[in-house]
Amino acid sequence: MTKIGVLLSGCGVFDGSEIHEAVLTLLSLDRAGVKIICMAPDMEQHHVINHLTQEITDEKRNALVESARIARGEIRDIKDVKSSDIDGLILPGGSGAAKNLSDFAFKGPDASVHPEVKRLLNEMVKSGKPVGAICIAPATLTRALSNINPEVTIGSDESTASAIEAMGGQHKVCEADMIHVDLKNKIVTTPAYMLAQGIKEVAEGIQKLVDKVVELAK
Amino acid sequence: MTKIGVLLSGCGVFDGSEIHEAVLTLLSLDRAGVKIICMAPDMEQHHVINHLTQEITDEKRNALVESARIARGEIRDIKDVKSSDIDGLILPGGSGAAKNLSDFAFKGPDASVHPEVKRLLNEMVKSGKPVGAICIAPATLTRALSNINPEVTIGSDESTASAIEAMGGQHKVCEADMIHVDLKNKIVTTPAYMLAQGIKEVAEGIQKLVDKVVELAK
Repeated sequence: MTKIGVLLSGCGVFDGSEIHEAVLTLLSLDRAGVKIICMAPDMEQHHVINHLTQEITDEKRNALVESARIARGEIRDIKDVKSSDIDGLILPGGSGAAKNLSDFAFKGPDASVHPEVKRLLNEMVKSGKPVGAICIAPATLTRALSNINPEVTIGSDESTASAIEAMGGQHKVCEADMIHVDLKNKIVTTPAYMLAQGIKEVAEGIQKLVDKVVELAK
Repeated sequence: MTKIGVLLSGCGVFDGSEIHEAVLTLLSLDRAGVKIICMAPDMEQHHVINHLTQEITDEKRNALVESARIARGEIRDIKDVKSSDIDGLILPGGSGAAKNLSDFAFKGPDASVHPEVKRLLNEMVKSGKPVGAICIAPATLTRALSNINPEVTIGSDESTASAIEAMGGQHKVCEADMIHVDLKNKIVTTPAYMLAQGIKEVAEGIQKLVDKVVELAK
């Protein structure tokens, strides 16, 4: 049975994984009949944002513990996951992908990637296994894999696109409900909420991304 | 444009809204082309559960603030929502629907319903507008509307079904990917994670529930 990892980064668009993108990834994977392995780094989130007021709070939350809300408790610490455990890996977006999995949200092209995230992404590429990245996650992916000059999309945002180019990536403009495929490196990306006007558009792009990652994983 | 309310109760299966059920409700509503109005009660959650370990923590969280994570910040306090603002209302499940919207999880048939939830549900029924309830939410709905003896399903769990009967409801056994429709009262219910083995089954039932609620709302 094909096993696809889903790398989460908390639970909420402003400080963790974008919840809609994460759930739609799980839905498309379940429909594809694959085994889903959710994971996240065991780390304190960069911050906790009140999603009603958008204010930064003084709370402390752990990205693995909060990600477990999306995964209904079925989740592993990324440090215990090797590329040999999975046939493909998908990173949903949300600010957590650029605040917890890396610090791209604060440092742009000078970002550092969480060491376990960088390790697993590099293992996947070296094993010839596909990686999907959604929304802002392609920025963190590019920083982790700058040595292979990946082709990715985050939609059409010029400032993010130029940061991706500065990190060695090749940015491709893409519609919200479409995907870009870097066939050489087996990297699949979709803009999702970087561009989408609503959840149904996000679902279209993620369905295509998941289908392509599963196809490349088999 | 048809307006459908979505009543949330936090963010997480064990202490708030079941995240998959809530997101799939939003997806089906967006695909139906209706305007979505998310809402939740402004109240401290009954408790906060660590979803990795399932332990009760000493944290305090607010159901409206946490629900805003699912709604991406676009959410209203239920006390400011009248039945005249919406054409239909849907309650996703998750423990929050029976711990925050009512205390059914602790008191069973003797449960009390949050006063604003009880008010809005009764207003909807009096206005002849449809209400959908998912997973465990039909128990809270039955307690709020025991005067109309609603027909509902929570799947096939005998203990919950008998509690529903004790509150004046009429429980109907139903498959995970199906709905039960009480046409007289315009109440639509689906078992979702009370019975489903995975997210794709949940998506099937919720798609049918949303389609029926939207049809009855027009």
